Amino acid sequence: MNASDQHHKFHRKALQVADAQRLIANYIKPGTIELIKLQDSHGRYLAEDVSAPHPFPRFRRSGMDGYAVKSADTVDCSSSHMVWLEVIDEVPCGSVSHKSIISGTAARIMTGAAVPDGADAVVMLEVVEVRSEGGKDLVGLKRPIEDGKNVTPIGLELQEGDSILRKGSRIDAGEISVLATFGVHQVKVYAKPRIAIFSTGSELLAIDAPLEPGKIRNSNTYMVASQVIKAGGEPFILEAVMDDLELARIKVEKALEEYDAVVTSGGVSVGDYDIMGDLVRSENVDMLYNKIAMRPGSVTTAAVKNGKLLFALSGNPGACFVGFELFVRPSIQGMMESPEPYLKEWTAILDQDYTKVNGFTRYVRGRIEVREGLVYAVPAAIDESSVMVTIKDSECLIVIPPAKQTTPAGTKVKIVLLKENV
Amino acid sequence: MNASDQHHKFHRKALQVADAQRLIANYIKPGTIELIKLQDSHGRYLAEDVSAPHPFPRFRRSGMDGYAVKSADTVDCSSSHMVWLEVIDEVPCGSVSHKSIISGTAARIMTGAAVPDGADAVVMLEVVEVRSEGGKDLVGLKRPIEDGKNVTPIGLELQEGDSILRKGSRIDAGEISVLATFGVHQVKVYAKPRIAIFSTGSELLAIDAPLEPGKIRNSNTYMVASQVIKAGGEPFILEAVMDDLELARIKVEKALEEYDAVVTSGGVSVGDYDIMGDLVRSENVDMLYNKIAMRPGSVTTAAVKNGKLLFALSGNPGACFVGFELFVRPSIQGMMESPEPYLKEWTAILDQDYTKVNGFTRYVRGRIEVREGLVYAVPAAIDESSVMVTIKDSECLIVIPPAKQTTPAGTKVKIVLLKENV
Repeated sequence: MNASDQHHKFHRKALQVADAQRLIANYIKPGTIELIKLQDSHGRYLAEDVSAPHPFPRFRRSGMDGYAVKSADTVDCSSSHMVWLEVIDEVPCGSVSHKSIISGTAARIMTGAAVPDGADAVVMLEVVEVRSEGGKDLVGLKRPIEDGKNVTPIGLELQEGDSILRKGSRIDAGEISVLATFGVHQVKVYAKPRIAIFSTGSELLAIDAPLEPGKIRNSNTYMVASQVIKAGGEPFILEAVMDDLELARIKVEKALEEYDAVVTSGGVSVGDYDIMGDLVRSENVDMLYNKIAMRPGSVTTAAVKNGKLLFALSGNPGACFVGFELFVRPSIQGMMESPEPYLKEWTAILDQDYTKVNGFTRYVRGRIEVREGLVYAVPAAIDESSVMVTIKDSECLIVIPPAKQTTPAGTKVKIVLLKENV
Repeated sequence: MNASDQHHKFHRKALQVADAQRLIANYIKPGTIELIKLQDSHGRYLAEDVSAPHPFPRFRRSGMDGYAVKSADTVDCSSSHMVWLEVIDEVPCGSVSHKSIISGTAARIMTGAAVPDGADAVVMLEVVEVRSEGGKDLVGLKRPIEDGKNVTPIGLELQEGDSILRKGSRIDAGEISVLATFGVHQVKVYAKPRIAIFSTGSELLAIDAPLEPGKIRNSNTYMVASQVIKAGGEPFILEAVMDDLELARIKVEKALEEYDAVVTSGGVSVGDYDIMGDLVRSENVDMLYNKIAMRPGSVTTAAVKNGKLLFALSGNPGACFVGFELFVRPSIQGMMESPEPYLKEWTAILDQDYTKVNGFTRYVRGRIEVREGLVYAVPAAIDESSVMVTIKDSECLIVIPPAKQTTPAGTKVKIVLLKENV
């Protein structure tokens, strides 16, 4: 490498995280749409807006097991002056009464059944008396009931045409309940973005290989695959690439043709063997950035080729993890038109002094503790970019702005939530 | 039905939620164990404790691209008095140097490579000068470096034998990173608990059937299936049962033989057609409880047969949802020995007056808002047990204790988190 190349390598222009996210957003396109069964849709992303095809409830629904009555009939009743009504029908769930309740009559009704015409309230079963007289069934009431009591009106929850689910929403139990209610037994969802993953580096051993001196097992590939699943994508683990620029170029280009995006880890720092760094500077791809004003992960790199995104993440596990969550995850979410592609942010209280001095914004792995209504962010004990073991215990990233001295406990800090399933 | 039966139906003994949870816990047994590939393990639950088979890092690791040196050699250097060291080796990642660094020498080294014997610090590439002289490569330093700088010591993250992952932990990106690092390419996990689900009620239409007057579509089955997946189980949707006690009994018994647990919705209130209520009072099963001191879902019922759990949830969507999260979810989690089977609880600040008067503890669906470090719980606008549409927007259940009057905004309340993926 000559001096000018080396200079070029060292003097990368650092982008702010938000600027880099905006830059990437230009290249995110909605993916293909597929029709799947409702029962297969948990965790998928809706590809269309859904509005109510009819009001819900669609009929006046009884909220109790009891008797449908005219409330006006009960105005004067009391324990000492019971009102007796003739029971003229019985309405189980799923049935419809063909009789109208007129003054002096009532209908036995079940929870969830359609309240008969004429009735405007349902008296619960537990507070009535029943008797038969002259072949007629009678129900006795001891207390007045107000108009509308225990009757859910038509459209209480939704009017016809109400917007109920937005395109890009993640489908969870509540969404499935809505879709089933309206008979959406097949759902239009985005196909899971297909994300190719590989690691680079001659130091990497396969996870089932015996250890060798100076080498480490390839863990980032599997970690990133898990992050892809959580982000809503489908991971494809490709073979790790040794430190060979030509081989890497061929593999990356092939993967960019076959998959929706490519994520690599390793090979992006300033060393002689940092092939991903070299690759994104070559003519074959358009580099978007190769330095972010953050730690860990300042070497996080992105490029685009034929409209597809290539993310070259740091080989350090902590930096790789953070780079994924800040840049790759929102891209996957964006391909499914998620209205909130970025991780949720809260303001929290820093629980302990954070003593590191930062030239760049630092994303510190940490836990969330809520005490008496206050959210505390607790930094992990060891938080080097190379550290792997604290990733599993991280519930958030604590955002520490550039600081020349200790950030004291009690400082209000931004945190980025990691454990929410969107 | 005779009067004594009806009396029995009405006068159920209400258990507190925690007591009912403890009662159920007696019947939860760890499920079977299976061995799966690491890349298939996202979201599964570990079936064994994992400890570190070797320290990590296993060798003194360079944290920078640069030069491995003896720090003592750099004590006196400055911009005006550079120290020049002979570069005697080059250590790429994955290689091991067979030379020792002695005073006056250095080795070129990459990020992540093993620091050669004798060296105790790594000077970053960006701050050195290089030249050749008499066939020797030299590196020039301008600043002293401290002992240990940019060298990650052996065992910084983990010592051999350190406990790293607990049985019952959910496997996510961080756990996968640990497992891959230690070569656990096949993982012992709990088989997903197999949960049979059906709804009861003659009012239920299949989700792909056209609407009929007085009927509703079967939405709870699909909602519960989604909740089962999220809890870590595998749902099996069985055909809905009409209001026929004998048929229901046969189906429930068959399902209890074939699956790890059975969840039904509907048929548990006090009406004449409430077959699940009748079924759990029969001799074929041992009823654990049929009333919980909570709303919604006071009719939530559980029974046991041949050591397997039957949960009969309310047919009201809101009550069904809550009953599942409080009782079924922890049971599924318990079958995988999760150390934290219950939903996480926080103390939050009630954001608005809650005006309903409660005889029982109320689990109000709500959202979480964090403002300036304070957690606010925002109740859903409509929160009847029968209401379906607010389930999808719920991030928590707000626990309102029994109250004779309005619970004012600003009250500290317990909330149960719904959106965390464990």
